[in-house]
Amino acid sequence: MHLPRSILNLIDEFARLPGIGPKTASRLTFYLLTKPDEAVNRFGQAVFELKKNIRHCEDCFTLTDTPRCSICRNPSRDSSTVMVIAKPLDVIAMERTGYEGQYFEIGGLISPIDGVGPEQLWIKQLLDRLVGHATIKEVILATDPSLEGEATALYIASQIEKLKQAKRTRPKLKVTRLARGLPVGSELEYADELTLARSLEGRKEY
Amino acid sequence: MHLPRSILNLIDEFARLPGIGPKTASRLTFYLLTKPDEAVNRFGQAVFELKKNIRHCEDCFTLTDTPRCSICRNPSRDSSTVMVIAKPLDVIAMERTGYEGQYFEIGGLISPIDGVGPEQLWIKQLLDRLVGHATIKEVILATDPSLEGEATALYIASQIEKLKQAKRTRPKLKVTRLARGLPVGSELEYADELTLARSLEGRKEY
Repeated sequence: MHLPRSILNLIDEFARLPGIGPKTASRLTFYLLTKPDEAVNRFGQAVFELKKNIRHCEDCFTLTDTPRCSICRNPSRDSSTVMVIAKPLDVIAMERTGYEGQYFEIGGLISPIDGVGPEQLWIKQLLDRLVGHATIKEVILATDPSLEGEATALYIASQIEKLKQAKRTRPKLKVTRLARGLPVGSELEYADELTLARSLEGRKEY
Repeated sequence: MHLPRSILNLIDEFARLPGIGPKTASRLTFYLLTKPDEAVNRFGQAVFELKKNIRHCEDCFTLTDTPRCSICRNPSRDSSTVMVIAKPLDVIAMERTGYEGQYFEIGGLISPIDGVGPEQLWIKQLLDRLVGHATIKEVILATDPSLEGEATALYIASQIEKLKQAKRTRPKLKVTRLARGLPVGSELEYADELTLARSLEGRKEY
């Protein structure tokens, strides 16, 4: 390939990103080549500074650039509800729904096939938080409705049950799970049987 | 949005790239967040260095990091054939075919709607090159088979014809155009009428 080294380098770097193949990587690189230096440098700067000051919130383990994240610091959020999520992107999705409680990120899902057990996740920290904060009235298990997500939710629910038995949490601490059912706007005809079975199981009075 | 500034910044930068929407931009940013610092810095460095030393080849106007590009400097390339291409990516595509001649990049296509006329492109430079190099026997017009590509090819062909009339180029200078026809592997049934008409027009003896 006769292209200048700096162009090949950036094509390589783009192609390492998930979902970006060599053709898209070339297209992105040549697009940047047509942009003014300031725009290219601003992009480079954003990449360099990405991880600067990024840490996990001391309280909820979501990503933040301050010791405690803006949600934990916000006194108007409902601190009696804690939503357990697996990864940072889930917070963004959930914030769009208008949810007003707090979060707790466990950093992934239990997946024996990938060597991820409960001890690799922040599940112990979650349980400690529930024991330490008697104000928490509900824990919403918002892990994915996948095999790993269900297993993780089941595991956490069983651990919380043990704490309750041992009288270490509020006796009426509610543990809930996001509803499984038909996605809004979908057609019944195309729903898979498991989703359909769940939506029947979880039916509500009209 | 409660996300740290550095994360939002990079999401914004990714979302400026063509074909990358806000969701993909978030996904790419969070992917980089999971990577070690070295990998992130290597990416940032590649962006910063992209335009360093990049210039247009003195002879053929393709992108290079030396005064003349590696194709123009390669004595084993056939200098009697010059392929006219619109943009740097076209060189990459063409190199994969095993083409062994030289290139000349005109920097775009004539497009009155975007305010691009012949004088905004390196067409004058191309004509000067043809006048100055009597060794050139064939000019392949390899612009896209689009409205703008055809118009550009037609314009260049007419300008070369004028030079020939004025006896300023080799009298037998051949001007050719890439064949239009059915793409390899396609099905006749799905071909549009223009492509089909072109493939009939350009049929070859078997």
